[in-house]
Amino acid sequence: MASQEVPKTCKVILADTIAKKLLAEVRETLVEVQSPGALKPTLAAFLANDDPAAVQYAEWSKKTCEENGFSFDLRRVDKEDLEEAIVSANQDDAVQGIIVYYPIWPGNHQQDKYIQETVSLAKDVEGLCHTHLFNMYHNVRFLDPPANKKKSILPCTPLAIVKALEHLQIYNPILAYGNRLFGKTITVINRSEVNGRPLAALLANDGATVYSVDVTGVQVFTRGSGIRALRHQVHDKEGWELKDVLPLSDVVIGGVPVESFKVPIELVRDGAVCVNFSSYRNFDGPAVKEKASIYVPSIGKVTIAVLLRNLVRLIANRKTDASS
Amino acid sequence: MASQEVPKTCKVILADTIAKKLLAEVRETLVEVQSPGALKPTLAAFLANDDPAAVQYAEWSKKTCEENGFSFDLRRVDKEDLEEAIVSANQDDAVQGIIVYYPIWPGNHQQDKYIQETVSLAKDVEGLCHTHLFNMYHNVRFLDPPANKKKSILPCTPLAIVKALEHLQIYNPILAYGNRLFGKTITVINRSEVNGRPLAALLANDGATVYSVDVTGVQVFTRGSGIRALRHQVHDKEGWELKDVLPLSDVVIGGVPVESFKVPIELVRDGAVCVNFSSYRNFDGPAVKEKASIYVPSIGKVTIAVLLRNLVRLIANRKTDASS
Repeated sequence: MASQEVPKTCKVILADTIAKKLLAEVRETLVEVQSPGALKPTLAAFLANDDPAAVQYAEWSKKTCEENGFSFDLRRVDKEDLEEAIVSANQDDAVQGIIVYYPIWPGNHQQDKYIQETVSLAKDVEGLCHTHLFNMYHNVRFLDPPANKKKSILPCTPLAIVKALEHLQIYNPILAYGNRLFGKTITVINRSEVNGRPLAALLANDGATVYSVDVTGVQVFTRGSGIRALRHQVHDKEGWELKDVLPLSDVVIGGVPVESFKVPIELVRDGAVCVNFSSYRNFDGPAVKEKASIYVPSIGKVTIAVLLRNLVRLIANRKTDASS
Repeated sequence: MASQEVPKTCKVILADTIAKKLLAEVRETLVEVQSPGALKPTLAAFLANDDPAAVQYAEWSKKTCEENGFSFDLRRVDKEDLEEAIVSANQDDAVQGIIVYYPIWPGNHQQDKYIQETVSLAKDVEGLCHTHLFNMYHNVRFLDPPANKKKSILPCTPLAIVKALEHLQIYNPILAYGNRLFGKTITVINRSEVNGRPLAALLANDGATVYSVDVTGVQVFTRGSGIRALRHQVHDKEGWELKDVLPLSDVVIGGVPVESFKVPIELVRDGAVCVNFSSYRNFDGPAVKEKASIYVPSIGKVTIAVLLRNLVRLIANRKTDASS
């Protein structure tokens, strides 16, 4: 090696690379689960706000759907008509999955949550219905134990990050399914109900020691010594801060939705894996590339691929219902 | 998962599993590099002592050779005749590789080293000639820069452990070749010239931070911040002991050739990977299985597979010479 160039030490992995692999799997699975001669599966998307980020996400989703054999039906509705429109889509056999762009009522999480529960469990492509969330937190992977034919749906962004970590071989396939993060220490910066908390739970359920960090402090999510617990427990780390957990972490995941926030790179371990899922990049690009072994600057395209993966799971679940 | 059994958290990987995969590759490569109609490649093995461990290793080697399309020619010689016997094998076109069972002169390392240098570089299947060792320490992977067609040979036991860590996915194939251990912290307990020191060097050259521990203390082998150095540097860690490095280590490799020595499992990190290469197992089996994510109890069969892998490399190197 002495006579050769030094290889770049940080590998930058783009969301597009991971998304393409997942979409190829999605297309294959769709062929397996769809009845011959069936119409393209339809994803009904409800837009009841003017949030430009939602509009853009809808446009990307439409493009990805159409490129991969799905039909994307964007339905712009007034927020007061949204509930009835969802009930109608729940009953419509031509609709396989339903997505709603939140927030509908900014500042009123409870009313948004009411809408999430209105979506039929069988069409909840975002994994936001309580049954799906409950299963996720409890590390229950199927909707129909003990038969275990119908997979429970996981929320898209957290699952996208799991799929990214699988692609990066942070999940060790040598280990048993469900334990493949055993021995890994991961910091997740963000503990929102939508992204950070479910992500910390998923990673801890798969065996990692997860430090969940937000402005209120640090919590540890873990299955405990020898990961003998069946699902994660959460404990407060009184007095701990980001600076205490970064140097311990094999993987650092940033999702702080604030332009000014940057992960203090000088505290990141040499050779760590850094993943950003905030629309504001939480890592300074040049600095992180001097320190990390792998850097994933964004995750959005993976999230859309996972949305379609979830949709195919819903189709498979309905087929299981029909044949049982 | 709540309704299912807890999967076993420690995966025990046997040397045999790793060896079989390597031997399949060796047989494939042999077909590629051998001329059509060529005789079976011959490994000449010189036994000039009565060490029962050497006799047993020779027997295993013979069996593995014969099962995989090689001829194993055990030559028992008096130690005073050994040098001439090696010179004769060096000149014999029917011999492709030479192995010598050490020690020949117990307590006289220099005389053994003289014998090692007597083996022709082109037949040094154990990677013990100075040129091979120099290249290994200097992270030079070819014998013929800049053409880089002839691979330098690595010593069998250290390379067997590298191959085991590749099998265990500790080497991350997402990273660039030569950097695949970046971000990993590894403790190697043993710093012998034959095994522990070359192993620490190989792992550090591939990007790991390696703590090399023996009775004299702890050294760190590393390519430095951001692994920007082309090869590892070694620094003493004054005052450090095994108890300081075990809790930091993703991987713990034990090779202490003493029956009484055991790695203090209580200091090993939860979910660490533990590998033993001593004939005396350095880990208490039941205890390590409660703590480690992966445990490799022995490495001997992998070492023999690597011996044949090296032999095929020597054959390929000679073919390169013949065609250039």
